[in-house]
Amino acid sequence: MTRGQFLTAMAFAPFVRGTSSGVNAQRLRQRLEELSLHGRPTGGIFADGVSRVAFSDADVAGRALVMRWMREAGLNPRIDAAGNILGSRAGSDAKLEPVLFGSHIDSVPSGGNFDGDLGSLSAIEAIEVLNAARETTRRPLEVVVWTNEEGVAYNNGLFGSRAAAGLLDKGEMDHVWNGVSQRDALRKIGGDPDKIGSARRGPFRAYLELHIEQGGNLDRQKIPVGVVEGIVGIDRFDVEIRGFANHAGTTPMPDRQDALIAASELTIAVNQIVRREPGRQVGTVGHIDVIPNAPNVIPGLVRLTVELRDLDKAKVARLGREIQDRAQKIATETKTAVVFTPASHHEPALADPKLQTVIEQASAKLGLKSMRLPSGAGHDAQSMAHIGPMAMIFIPSVNGISHSPKELSRWEDCANGAAVLLESVRILAA
Amino acid sequence: MTRGQFLTAMAFAPFVRGTSSGVNAQRLRQRLEELSLHGRPTGGIFADGVSRVAFSDADVAGRALVMRWMREAGLNPRIDAAGNILGSRAGSDAKLEPVLFGSHIDSVPSGGNFDGDLGSLSAIEAIEVLNAARETTRRPLEVVVWTNEEGVAYNNGLFGSRAAAGLLDKGEMDHVWNGVSQRDALRKIGGDPDKIGSARRGPFRAYLELHIEQGGNLDRQKIPVGVVEGIVGIDRFDVEIRGFANHAGTTPMPDRQDALIAASELTIAVNQIVRREPGRQVGTVGHIDVIPNAPNVIPGLVRLTVELRDLDKAKVARLGREIQDRAQKIATETKTAVVFTPASHHEPALADPKLQTVIEQASAKLGLKSMRLPSGAGHDAQSMAHIGPMAMIFIPSVNGISHSPKELSRWEDCANGAAVLLESVRILAA
Repeated sequence: MTRGQFLTAMAFAPFVRGTSSGVNAQRLRQRLEELSLHGRPTGGIFADGVSRVAFSDADVAGRALVMRWMREAGLNPRIDAAGNILGSRAGSDAKLEPVLFGSHIDSVPSGGNFDGDLGSLSAIEAIEVLNAARETTRRPLEVVVWTNEEGVAYNNGLFGSRAAAGLLDKGEMDHVWNGVSQRDALRKIGGDPDKIGSARRGPFRAYLELHIEQGGNLDRQKIPVGVVEGIVGIDRFDVEIRGFANHAGTTPMPDRQDALIAASELTIAVNQIVRREPGRQVGTVGHIDVIPNAPNVIPGLVRLTVELRDLDKAKVARLGREIQDRAQKIATETKTAVVFTPASHHEPALADPKLQTVIEQASAKLGLKSMRLPSGAGHDAQSMAHIGPMAMIFIPSVNGISHSPKELSRWEDCANGAAVLLESVRILAA
Repeated sequence: MTRGQFLTAMAFAPFVRGTSSGVNAQRLRQRLEELSLHGRPTGGIFADGVSRVAFSDADVAGRALVMRWMREAGLNPRIDAAGNILGSRAGSDAKLEPVLFGSHIDSVPSGGNFDGDLGSLSAIEAIEVLNAARETTRRPLEVVVWTNEEGVAYNNGLFGSRAAAGLLDKGEMDHVWNGVSQRDALRKIGGDPDKIGSARRGPFRAYLELHIEQGGNLDRQKIPVGVVEGIVGIDRFDVEIRGFANHAGTTPMPDRQDALIAASELTIAVNQIVRREPGRQVGTVGHIDVIPNAPNVIPGLVRLTVELRDLDKAKVARLGREIQDRAQKIATETKTAVVFTPASHHEPALADPKLQTVIEQASAKLGLKSMRLPSGAGHDAQSMAHIGPMAMIFIPSVNGISHSPKELSRWEDCANGAAVLLESVRILAA
């Protein structure tokens, strides 16, 4: 999508009307645009995207703005020890577990204005609608904006939700990024690293998160609502391929131990093995370093990453084994040594089946078609799945583009998503 | 080869005797070792290699040492405008064109102690032998140590020999490297950039250069002398592959435009196309950059180099066309765009057939087996081929390793090479 196409797509629905749920689509749009100012490139417009990396000055400013809106909605926001922003709305029965919902507002560098922001501001919008209708739910409601979902800072995302679920790694508070410890970064946003354990949260009836799909399924099939079956498991391997660096002019072809030839065979093998069976599994070689990386030297050493994702963890494990078996054959054929080291393992996080049904009921009530699909991307919801029932609502991403200034969702789809979130909350909190 | 193996190999011939030609193998070894001190890693030994990049302080010191030896050999060295060190020995007929021979003493970073040094110091050794024998040749002799052969400085090698052959590029004197212009770098080593044209040299009977093979042919076949048929032509292409960067978790496999898949197919195609016909041609993808190069992002852009070498320029050109044709098929299959840009073109430089025969005669006289072979690496001799007859003598490189501290030639082979150089000079200067 070109910048011009982006602007045209945005202009398609300039006058968004409220839906039957009471969501004020115009207010939601205005707030997405206002939040986008924090981290916008100098002199840029909304279509130029946003860089609001967690703990940056833009993140601090964006969080202050979101807290202002939460206060205006009567949510009396507080910041927990992990920097998460939480705001509560009383229900008629204070003894019941709350319905928890929200998302994040941090972004990747040169990211888009919908990833995270939509779910966070739609959660506040849901409260606004209930306030305007003077509607009291039976259960308490709790809105959350999680800390550092993207994990650009400290190369480790879902920080706030992992803290809430008790999933932080030992020593994680001492990690240093850009010269600042995780501890000090938390202090910058109002967290309390010395009491990080207090961020562990109590039980909840359900955790709901509205998010853009970040893939092209809903957009391609023109279905406004995605009901997430779960967040895929991810196995990532660091692979080292050792050949022998030598002069590219003087070393005959049969004598070479070219690590890049082996890496190329492996990259193609990952693609072939992942694609040769039906299903929605994906596999990617996204990172590659070649040493010495000179035009006239045969590559002696290659380091690359292999990443596999699927909702079925047995399939992820099997694909990993098949790829490693093939890698050993490639090593033999190319006279190289190939070593796989597991770099990270994330279990799939399945959405609660009953909550999926609730989202489908809410969509149907609003006259919106829905479909079930997995989330290929990670989300704070996967942390919550460790400690309670969770579900996610997806809306279409135009052309499936995300983590890019070209990331775009239609305003109408945004409002529909907020409405499905609100209706689902109404059902669950009743 | 490990460092231990290197040291063992070096120790094999600790007491090198003179050959029938009169070459003092012990003196040649001692001088190679003494020169290696200039640019040796701090605290290192000979086996740790050398970093004597042209125009560096180590290069300046090494040049001063070589000039001292040239003075001691009565060569009365002078520095020409291009920084080349030249020393002459009179013949009995001053009107005849001289026999020119030598090499270079600059190195790549973390290079070896034989590449260039052997040919330069063997040229001086040849003069020493003639002096000791009070032997006067009919033709004058001229020893040369060329400036910046490796081209690490200014990314453009063969500087001195190109200046001598009138092959410098327009504007080359203004190039800046490490903050210093080529002009000022020349002044540092005693050259005169304002009179660079004066480095153009007059006619010569022959240019001879002794060098290590830098490949494994002689070592594998246990043949002590290589007679170079010519220096291969080189075509280098910069290739840009444009796909589309997208989320590695959310983008289904069939929707991807993965530039690294295309790059991998191309890397393998270069290898296949170069290897599917007989001959000594080589093809290499040595450099690759991936953008954004993150484990969880589908590569959107890849830049790589394709380099092809052979003595037959028609073959190099045809292979280049075949690879480009295949690249377009790969582009279609992978939904990417692949663009080849010619980055550099070097014509093959053929050695003079009569001079090749002279080297074979010299080898036979010394009882040394010889074989003809191409040079896959570039040498100053290729500049000389533009303005006169040239030939090169190769000696074995253990395991074919070069441009590495592990570069190694046996002392006996070094002495044999110097002897073949001397005998060839004797034949040509007679």
